Parts: sequence; C-alpha cells; structure tokens
Amino acid sequence: MSLIVHKYGGTSMGSVERIQNVARRVAKWHKAGHQIVVVPSAMSGETNRLLALAKELHAQPDPRELDMIAATGEQVSVGLLAIALKAIGVDAVSYAGWQVPVRTDRAYTKARISSIDDARVRADLDAGRVVVITGFQGVDDVGNITTLGRGGSDTSAVAVAAALHADECLIYTDVDGVYTTDPRIVPEARRLERVTFEEMLEMASLGSKVLQIRSVEFAGKYKVKTRVLSSLTPPDIALDIEAESGTLITFEEDESMEQAVISGIAFNRDEAKITVANVPDRPGIAFQILGPIAEANIDVDMIIQNQSMNGTTDFSFTVHRNEYQKALEVLNNTVKQHIAAGAVTGDPKICKVSAVGIGMRSHVGIASLMFRTLSEEGINIQMISTSEIKISVVLEDKYMELAVRALHKAFGLDQAPNGAQ
Amino acid sequence: MSLIVHKYGGTSMGSVERIQNVARRVAKWHKAGHQIVVVPSAMSGETNRLLALAKELHAQPDPRELDMIAATGEQVSVGLLAIALKAIGVDAVSYAGWQVPVRTDRAYTKARISSIDDARVRADLDAGRVVVITGFQGVDDVGNITTLGRGGSDTSAVAVAAALHADECLIYTDVDGVYTTDPRIVPEARRLERVTFEEMLEMASLGSKVLQIRSVEFAGKYKVKTRVLSSLTPPDIALDIEAESGTLITFEEDESMEQAVISGIAFNRDEAKITVANVPDRPGIAFQILGPIAEANIDVDMIIQNQSMNGTTDFSFTVHRNEYQKALEVLNNTVKQHIAAGAVTGDPKICKVSAVGIGMRSHVGIASLMFRTLSEEGINIQMISTSEIKISVVLEDKYMELAVRALHKAFGLDQAPNGAQ
Repeated sequence: MSLIVHKYGGTSMGSVERIQNVARRVAKWHKAGHQIVVVPSAMSGETNRLLALAKELHAQPDPRELDMIAATGEQVSVGLLAIALKAIGVDAVSYAGWQVPVRTDRAYTKARISSIDDARVRADLDAGRVVVITGFQGVDDVGNITTLGRGGSDTSAVAVAAALHADECLIYTDVDGVYTTDPRIVPEARRLERVTFEEMLEMASLGSKVLQIRSVEFAGKYKVKTRVLSSLTPPDIALDIEAESGTLITFEEDESMEQAVISGIAFNRDEAKITVANVPDRPGIAFQILGPIAEANIDVDMIIQNQSMNGTTDFSFTVHRNEYQKALEVLNNTVKQHIAAGAVTGDPKICKVSAVGIGMRSHVGIASLMFRTLSEEGINIQMISTSEIKISVVLEDKYMELAVRALHKAFGLDQAPNGAQ
Repeated sequence: MSLIVHKYGGTSMGSVERIQNVARRVAKWHKAGHQIVVVPSAMSGETNRLLALAKELHAQPDPRELDMIAATGEQVSVGLLAIALKAIGVDAVSYAGWQVPVRTDRAYTKARISSIDDARVRADLDAGRVVVITGFQGVDDVGNITTLGRGGSDTSAVAVAAALHADECLIYTDVDGVYTTDPRIVPEARRLERVTFEEMLEMASLGSKVLQIRSVEFAGKYKVKTRVLSSLTPPDIALDIEAESGTLITFEEDESMEQAVISGIAFNRDEAKITVANVPDRPGIAFQILGPIAEANIDVDMIIQNQSMNGTTDFSFTVHRNEYQKALEVLNNTVKQHIAAGAVTGDPKICKVSAVGIGMRSHVGIASLMFRTLSEEGINIQMISTSEIKISVVLEDKYMELAVRALHKAFGLDQAPNGAQ
C-alpha cells in the first residue's frame, strides 16, 4: 500500500462528465489498495470568470479580496469531486486549504506555503477515505485566505505530498508528459521517460508550461517523486500501465541519462529586452539600475553585462513583455538621472530559445553546436546567457519556430536515445 | 453614531452594476457616520447553478459536500462587495462565516447558529471599516462549513445584528416592505409601516415570503429592530427618507395598532391535505400517525382533529405538496397496519388563506366576518385552524385569488387606518 497524491488541472475538472472521469481514475487507484489524496484545480474558466468580475469593479482590486473570491473555484471542485467519488461507492471527504490547514505567509495572490498539518488528512486516510484538498490556496496565521498564484495547484499537490511523505505525486495534465520541445512546433518532439529535477526547473522557468516552477522547486527541496501524466487516457486503463506512463521527475542522474546531452529545447516569446548604453564601470552600478526596477515590482529574467571598454559598458536585461513600457519609464525617469549613462533602448519583439540538459555539464561543444546551427539558418544571436545546464539565446521573435526546429534536429532529439523507440 | 446591519438579497447582488449600487447605498450610510456591517447573499442564480452541478453527480449528494460547494456563492459576493466599496473610497474587509466565526451545529444544509464572535468585526468597525460578512453559512465546532438553508442570509443578518447589539437590521429586498397582502393579487394592497413580530412570524410561516421565518424568530428572541425595505430605490435617496421607509418589525403594540384588527391576508398554495378517517379515539393516536411522518422527515403544518363521535374521529393534517405522495405511502405502508383506521384520503389541490392580526385578540367577530365573506363568494371551507392572532382556512386551490381579494376588502385593508394615506 502506497500513499499517492493526484493533482488534476482545470481542464480535467471542466465538466460533470470530466469530473466523473477523474473520480473513476481515483477510484481505480483507491481500489488497488492505495491511500489517495486528490488536489483538483478550479473548473476551467472559473478563476478567470471570478477575477473578471473583480476587475470590472476596480482596476486594481484589493489582493486580499481577490484571494477571497478566487479561492472559491477550488472549493467548488473539491466538493463536486467528493460527491462524484461517493456516487461510485468511494468514501471521500473534501477540505479547503484553511481546514487542513495549509499555512502560508500573507503575500496575497502569491503566497508561499510555510507548513501543512497532516493530522486531519492522515486520520481520514487511515479510515479508508479518499481526501480531496483544494489546490492553489491556504490560510495565513490570523485566518485570512491566501492563494499561491497561477498554477499554484501544482505546488499545493507537491507540498501536500511532501507533508504526508507520499510515495509519489501524480500531476495529471492535458499533455502526457514532458517533451523534448513543444510538439506543436516540432512534430518529431519525443516524450521524455525521465527528466531530472534541475532540467525540469530550467524547462519550467523557460516557458515549458507543463508544471509551475514553484512546484518543481518544492519537489526538489523535499525530494517528492513527481510524475507528469495525461488525464486524457481512459480512466479504466490498467493501473500498472498508467503508473509507468508520463514523465518522471528524478533526483538522480542514472546511466541512461549520460547518453542524452541535451534533454529539450525550451522557448518563450513573453519577454522584452532593454539595454542601458555607456554605463560607467564602477561598483554598485548594477544595483543602481535594477534596484528601482525591483522596487517597481518588475521581475527581471536574463541579466547581461559584458567586460567594459574605455571605462563604460552596456547593461542589458529582459523583462516580461507586459512590463516593458513600465520598465522603460522607470529607467528614463529615475535611473538615468542618477547615473551618467547613455541611451536607454529596448525591443519587445524578441524570443528566448534554450537548450537544456544535465549532460551539458560534462560535454564540451554544446555551445558551439548551438551557435553554428543558428548561424547556418541565418539567425542572428542578440544576447547569450548560460547556466550549468542550459544555454539561452535571445533572437528576433520571428525566428523562434525555425530556431527551435533546427536545434531540436541538431541535438538529435528527434531520435530516441540508445536506439530505444 | 449607530451600528447598522444591512442585508442584501441575491437579486440586489445579481450583476456588477447592482453590486455597485449596493456599495453606493452602504457608502451613504457609512458617510453619515454609522458603523456598517453588510451581509450579502450569493449572486442570483449562483446557488442553484452550484447545486445543479452536484445533483448531476449524485441524486442525493452528501450534505457536508453540498455545504462546501454552496457556501462559495456568498464568499464571492463578500469579496466583490468589499472591492466595490474600496473602488468608491470606503475602506472595507470581507469575512466568510468561519472567519468571524459564526458557530453553528452540524446539521448540514439546515444548520442553526449557536454563537457569533464579535471581536474581530468590532475591531474593524472601530478602525472605520465597513465589514462584509457572508450570509447563509457558518462553521461547526471542528471546522466543517455549514449552511443555514434557503433564505439563511436573512437569519445571518439578524443574528449578526443581535451579536453586535446593532441598533437596527435593514433587510433590503426586491419589495419595499410588508404588504396587507400580495399586490400582484390585490392591487389595492397597502404597505404596512409597522408590523409586530408575532404578526410577521405568522405571515412568514404562511407563505408571505418577505423574510425567512427563522430570521423573524431570531429578531424576536433577541429583540433586534428589523426593517424590511427596497433595494430598488435609488441608492442616493436622502438618508432620512430611506431610514423611515419600508416596514419596521416592532415588539410593542402601539396605539395606532389598535385600530387595525387585521394586518394582512396571507396565503399559500404549496400544501396538500391528508385525512385518516375513522381513527379510534384513544390516547397516543396522534403520535402513532404523525410519528412515522416525522421520522420520514416530512414537515407537517396544520393539524386538525375534531371531537369524536361514536368512539372514532377523523384526523387531518397538511404537508408540503412535494411530500404528499411520500406521506401517503408512509401512512398506507406503516400507520394503517398499526391502528384500525379507515381510509387514508387526501388532496393536493388546496390552498390556505389566513387573516393575521395582533388586534384579533381583543376583537370579537373576526371569524364570523371571515366565514361570511367566503360564504357570500360561494367558497366552501374544507378545514379551519386558529391561533391567537390568525385564522386559517383550507380551500379548493382555484378559489385562492378570489378569497384573498374578498377578505382584503372585507377587513378594510385597502383603506389606510385613521384616514392616513
């Protein structure tokens, strides 16, 4: 008997029929003798519907009240799923985050989980019940409802799995695992049977939206064995087949991993780049530029500063495209007055393409293969940034699909490793 | 400065524009220097939508899960209203029932309030905030969400007013007060400026659906000054005019009341009558008949048993029309075998019409005027039941409108008392 946490996304919970499918899948696992905790998202569209109502009333609604409103979507889901389970003879009980409780800080709309009390859930599991817990939400130390931000149900599920020392956390989505890249762009993209935690982290942060990045961090921190798999397979598929499907996020590099140097090509088109030219090369400059950006609550992704020439340098970074104008304003209104820099320029029409792979660490030549491939396609590289297991380049956005396809092929990702299919 | 509780129904909260109107009305009261607590219902249609989803999943959904689901409607409402208040510069904070907390027993879907903690609410009021509390719901002693049943938001509002020792509880509805009868049936029906608690109780239980009956009981038990008034009047109407509008539920009979013998004509068409003929006249018979009915969770309204003749009597009662068949089955399957009674007969096509008035106590001739009026219209009376302040008759249902109009006129309800208009 194992303790398994299931997480279902909004699409899987999107109608009465789909909720019944979720219930059948949960029942199959429960009847096989496992203890099951389920963390469902709100029915698809529901959170957006609720937040749109709030936006109609106020351009910048109070975040505490937004959480009060948004948290209801998941509360409806847990109640409906518990009823669907009882309808097919499985004893079940639902809890909102505050009932468990799932404790968080008070950062409304983007709260972080601080602790989860497992006593109540464990008592129900021991009594043979399936426990259905709201994703996406918790409660602060004085009883205010908080939410974890978009995609937060993934994080809830992994956190619940960690608190309960669950044997596995199964994240059911509308894709059947993690792919070498987006199959909509590269039809030859392959599903990975396994991906390391570090790779998954890079993929998630690079815009492969299979899992919310914080859930991956949580999985890594607490060593939660997490599997991404499809909720679109028939719920009555044999348990042993289902248990081996999808993509497993692992914490060890095994031998088979050595073969694949690059695990996937990630990309996104959500960013804009900004360059402050002719910045004096002296200590504290980076802080003087990015401090006001951070104060304005603008997240920065890539940061690039090259060796200075003649006492000045160019300082570049990328922000989310929605915050591009705001970032330019901050720089022009504040930063430029305090440092004797040159022009502030930028471009929102960029994309970022990254090669990610744990094998990169021990292999030379990855960067040169990447740059040569892009060069052969006539694609100019605007910016480069690297980490231990990834190389990212910023390109003009119209080249994104072309670059992804060329790199996917160049790194041999369209062929199974070791000749396995 | 007074402490005032406002309650708004689902129609008043039914759209963004209507919520904005509610906010403007609340703001007017708040700006006049009053401390304001608001108890809104779920947006109209929302509770039905949620319960319909549950019913699709299970013919008899688990009541705990139903409450989990249904409670979200009001939680959305309080968040939206707090946001709407902030949008017009009024500081506001929302609470779900469990956050106050509003403590109840564990009778899911029909819980009763046991206590309300006022500390948190009072601190917010003292800080100048409008406090918005979910109607319809509370929390039991181990943290399960409970709901108070249909119309429970009225009860929540009055209970909150009682706990806070509020100066007044204003129930905003889609009618502008309590009428001598339904204006849709009798165009001459007049709005009552005042009605006593006892009369209101009879009117509510008799199907004048202005207020939920339990809210009236609560108002009476805790002497909460409660006013029913319209949310359809412009929210910017002068405060002193609005504060005097609607119908006030009073706890004293004042002089003006002596004038009106009958305050109103109530009616409903939701009941069915059942008669067990030739029941042996011996102790315990009433219990033997109604015990199994109560065990089947069927509510009984009128109960009539006349003096026995020749050792047997006929025992009649009324139930909700939806439970008529079930009640007949209980009697035929269970009761008839244990008591040597005659036929069980019944009729779902009945109506009940009642004259209600605190003045009835000190006036003779009310009953005879009522019976004469019905007789003059050729209406046969099937059953009669009286209390200290009301006389109810059961009639064939097709006569309902005719009877109501005739009685409204006969008791002079279409003319203002004392010649006032």
